[in-house]
Amino acid sequence: MLLCDIGNTTCHFFSDERSYREDAALFDPSSIQERVFYICVNPRLKNLLKELPNWIDLCAYVDFKKYYETMGIDRIVACEAIEEGVIVDAGSAITVDIVKKGRFEGGFIYPGARAMGECYKNISSALEYSFNFEVDLDKMPKNSRDAISYGYLKLLKSEVDSYNMEIFLTGGDAKSFSNIFPNAHLDEMLIFRGMKNIMKRADLC
Amino acid sequence: MLLCDIGNTTCHFFSDERSYREDAALFDPSSIQERVFYICVNPRLKNLLKELPNWIDLCAYVDFKKYYETMGIDRIVACEAIEEGVIVDAGSAITVDIVKKGRFEGGFIYPGARAMGECYKNISSALEYSFNFEVDLDKMPKNSRDAISYGYLKLLKSEVDSYNMEIFLTGGDAKSFSNIFPNAHLDEMLIFRGMKNIMKRADLC
Repeated sequence: MLLCDIGNTTCHFFSDERSYREDAALFDPSSIQERVFYICVNPRLKNLLKELPNWIDLCAYVDFKKYYETMGIDRIVACEAIEEGVIVDAGSAITVDIVKKGRFEGGFIYPGARAMGECYKNISSALEYSFNFEVDLDKMPKNSRDAISYGYLKLLKSEVDSYNMEIFLTGGDAKSFSNIFPNAHLDEMLIFRGMKNIMKRADLC
Repeated sequence: MLLCDIGNTTCHFFSDERSYREDAALFDPSSIQERVFYICVNPRLKNLLKELPNWIDLCAYVDFKKYYETMGIDRIVACEAIEEGVIVDAGSAITVDIVKKGRFEGGFIYPGARAMGECYKNISSALEYSFNFEVDLDKMPKNSRDAISYGYLKLLKSEVDSYNMEIFLTGGDAKSFSNIFPNAHLDEMLIFRGMKNIMKRADLC
């Protein structure tokens, strides 16, 4: 049995034995014969998967009443993984969601590192820098690279830290962001724990 | 005598009688015969202006030692306008700079509203919303439009408010951001006050 979290850029697979990623733009889901329980936010793959009976969309087993209508299924399933805390899911976008006593309490969306780097570059070629994840966030910057790194990272850190909750850091860029959130639980498999919780409640495993 | 602040998208003119803006992509500086004191961050216009003797670059009169090497001239000149406070210049980019006792103490760069809107849209069409400048920033969002509006605006507000300083709000988008910073001094002419301070010190006016 495989689990799969399909994002806008990556398909992340997980089984008891291993975890691996495929490029979402190139991935052909009909290449897999075994049973796959999945969630998907990728429009192209969503369409293809409808036709494949061995791919089972966990959407059907989620209690949507606890969430809001247009909330991404990846955020919802991550929330199902924990009982209390703030989830920082750093991928194409960074979603930050609060869970208290098993209840979703709201969340916000911030650009992921790649998108934000492009964003600065599109404003002006003078702002084309890679982010410095080791920038000193306790000092106001006095050079351009740190000025954009601080603008991107410090603002996120301050907001997340202000909740005074346990932080669960996940997603493809989780490792880079662990510099910014040194006390966070780094858990790249969080979403799969959420998927398993949903499957257990629905007697699927 | 005219003053002109040339940004990446807009040329902002100011005289004792009036203030007006021209689209930077279309503007032909040779169409103006009178003397213009200017600052410019726009590469195309920078080149054209070198050839025009009635256009005087205030760059030559700035004390750059107080600032850092790659800092935009528009940020520097805005800092010259105040003795103490935090300047939020909301244009293509949002620059946030701290001045204490007439000294620049560092600053950061955040994307402007248009660039950040594009950034969310480029991540996913599901994030294509205009920002809600009236979102309640004291509540964690439970809908997509507020989730991106909060992500963009609350993080900026919290950082700027954390300095506990007078806020000077300027730039083309200053009015939209005055919802977020209700106690700020809204001063769209701040940069021209900085230019005048430099000119006075250099005996240019």
